[in-house]
Amino acid sequence: MNKWYASLGKEADTVVSTRIRLARNLAGIPFPSRMTAEQRRQVNEQVRDALFADTTLGKQFKYLEMETLPDITAEAMVERHLISPAFAARREGKALLLSEDESVSIMLCEEDHIRIQVMEAGLAPEEAYRTANAIDDALSARLTYAFDERLGYLTECPTNLGTGLRASLMLHLPALEASGGINRLAATVSKIGMTVRGTYGEGTKPVAALYQVSNQVTLGISEEAAIENLRAIAAQAIQQERALRSSLDPDGIEDAAYRALGTLKFARAVTSQEFMELISQVRLGVAMGVIKDLPLATVEELMISAGPASIQAAEGKPLDPAERDKARAKLARERL
Amino acid sequence: MNKWYASLGKEADTVVSTRIRLARNLAGIPFPSRMTAEQRRQVNEQVRDALFADTTLGKQFKYLEMETLPDITAEAMVERHLISPAFAARREGKALLLSEDESVSIMLCEEDHIRIQVMEAGLAPEEAYRTANAIDDALSARLTYAFDERLGYLTECPTNLGTGLRASLMLHLPALEASGGINRLAATVSKIGMTVRGTYGEGTKPVAALYQVSNQVTLGISEEAAIENLRAIAAQAIQQERALRSSLDPDGIEDAAYRALGTLKFARAVTSQEFMELISQVRLGVAMGVIKDLPLATVEELMISAGPASIQAAEGKPLDPAERDKARAKLARERL
Repeated sequence: MNKWYASLGKEADTVVSTRIRLARNLAGIPFPSRMTAEQRRQVNEQVRDALFADTTLGKQFKYLEMETLPDITAEAMVERHLISPAFAARREGKALLLSEDESVSIMLCEEDHIRIQVMEAGLAPEEAYRTANAIDDALSARLTYAFDERLGYLTECPTNLGTGLRASLMLHLPALEASGGINRLAATVSKIGMTVRGTYGEGTKPVAALYQVSNQVTLGISEEAAIENLRAIAAQAIQQERALRSSLDPDGIEDAAYRALGTLKFARAVTSQEFMELISQVRLGVAMGVIKDLPLATVEELMISAGPASIQAAEGKPLDPAERDKARAKLARERL
Repeated sequence: MNKWYASLGKEADTVVSTRIRLARNLAGIPFPSRMTAEQRRQVNEQVRDALFADTTLGKQFKYLEMETLPDITAEAMVERHLISPAFAARREGKALLLSEDESVSIMLCEEDHIRIQVMEAGLAPEEAYRTANAIDDALSARLTYAFDERLGYLTECPTNLGTGLRASLMLHLPALEASGGINRLAATVSKIGMTVRGTYGEGTKPVAALYQVSNQVTLGISEEAAIENLRAIAAQAIQQERALRSSLDPDGIEDAAYRALGTLKFARAVTSQEFMELISQVRLGVAMGVIKDLPLATVEELMISAGPASIQAAEGKPLDPAERDKARAKLARERL
């Protein structure tokens, strides 16, 4: 089955993906940081059974006990944005429900008991929210959530109280980055309760000009309003990025994009950092139509498959950095 | 007809080409620097007629009055090492006899009345000398050279007195250059009356790790001994370069060579300097067998066709630097 990132979404020139995350906890059970091993097991199994009891949804998922997975597999999942770095780092007593196309991942006993995450290619917050909502409904039909009339869904961290919703977009903004316009965008974004982060979330640096934009406020604002705000910010970022792109020298863009493509098609060793810089140039070239005959989805797939852990997971064995750089170059040659 | 550089010579991994030059003057006529226009015309035509009178040799040559050629054509000839920069810069009253495969060029009224130059691919000083000698014999059968029993052939510049012979090799020495070993080689070379120069001769810088090695002394040494010395130096340079190449990290060489190839196959604009750096890497990769399926002769042809004037001559019109860089990139993409 094709993974979610193998298809092309809306506004794909600038929007790589949309992610919706819902945080939920079960009533009467401590938050994960204070749970016993037995309580974790019980929560994991309760949620699993609740999902599997839904005959339509249930069969799309597999249940993974995180502590049984090799480090590399878990780290590769972080690179694919399926799980959080913290979830991969301390896997004891944690479990994951993962849909076949990897568009839905449900982390169990992460910061909260349940973290439903839905990914969609391109700009699709409503679609992603609809899917998350359906899963939420299926679970809540069989589980009792910790919910307060005044505060909404209760979560371990107060920043998630209320809707428990985080809606975010992964934006490819090479022109805004090069022009220094990112800081202005970030300032605007923060005024409406949203934030711009690096590629792998809070505290991480942008890689390949990939930026996460997401809502900060979950209390006193409806899910619909949060998604509305995200759309509004996205529209601004897309418009600014496109305007800047169209003001760039087309010959320079074409040359840079094809050089990056040439290097990726021919190099014998490529570090992760260089890879991301090159693929960003290629993505821009494809998005602007200067590189033809290369589907954007191929670029997306390659981008999501070239992290250090993903490379090792694909090769099925641990590799030292030099071996990884060779395997990464080989992967790029084969895919491009 | 294929040009001389389209075939591959001996020791082609390190020796790009061999050049033999003989300087000759006609008796009883001032050296070119003090000739009248009428005397130039007479010398040019006498030499032309002498060559054309030889039925075998004559039909291989065309006769070009240099002042009738466009600047670009003359400059492209310099880039192909057919004529000297000085000969291209001041063309009035000068003429050229050029063989069809461009392996033999005879400059008339350059520094001396006659400069016979023979090029061969790879290491072939004897073959080149034999060809030069045959032309010299054909001309001397019909012309009276300025010759002195004690001094040998008389030439305008005393450094050419005697044999009038300059034997030189164009060597590709990227590993020696990178290791800093070129200076040691140059010191050794100078001890036996030879010299190491840049790519375009005296006072020019090496480009693409291409070095000219040639004899300095023409007096008191036979042609055979000069060629013997050149062979000895070549053997040393080749041996040192090969030893250094085999000590290099093969993975690094392969990666660098393929990256250079990838850039040349995909870039949309390449400056002359970058082109030479890239093609030097590619040449090394092909010579060391890490790049397969790319004939070294293709690299040589491209290398000799990518100078600013050659690019314009091929396009048939003057181009500004940005247009040249695009045309050069296009040429590289097509040829590779």
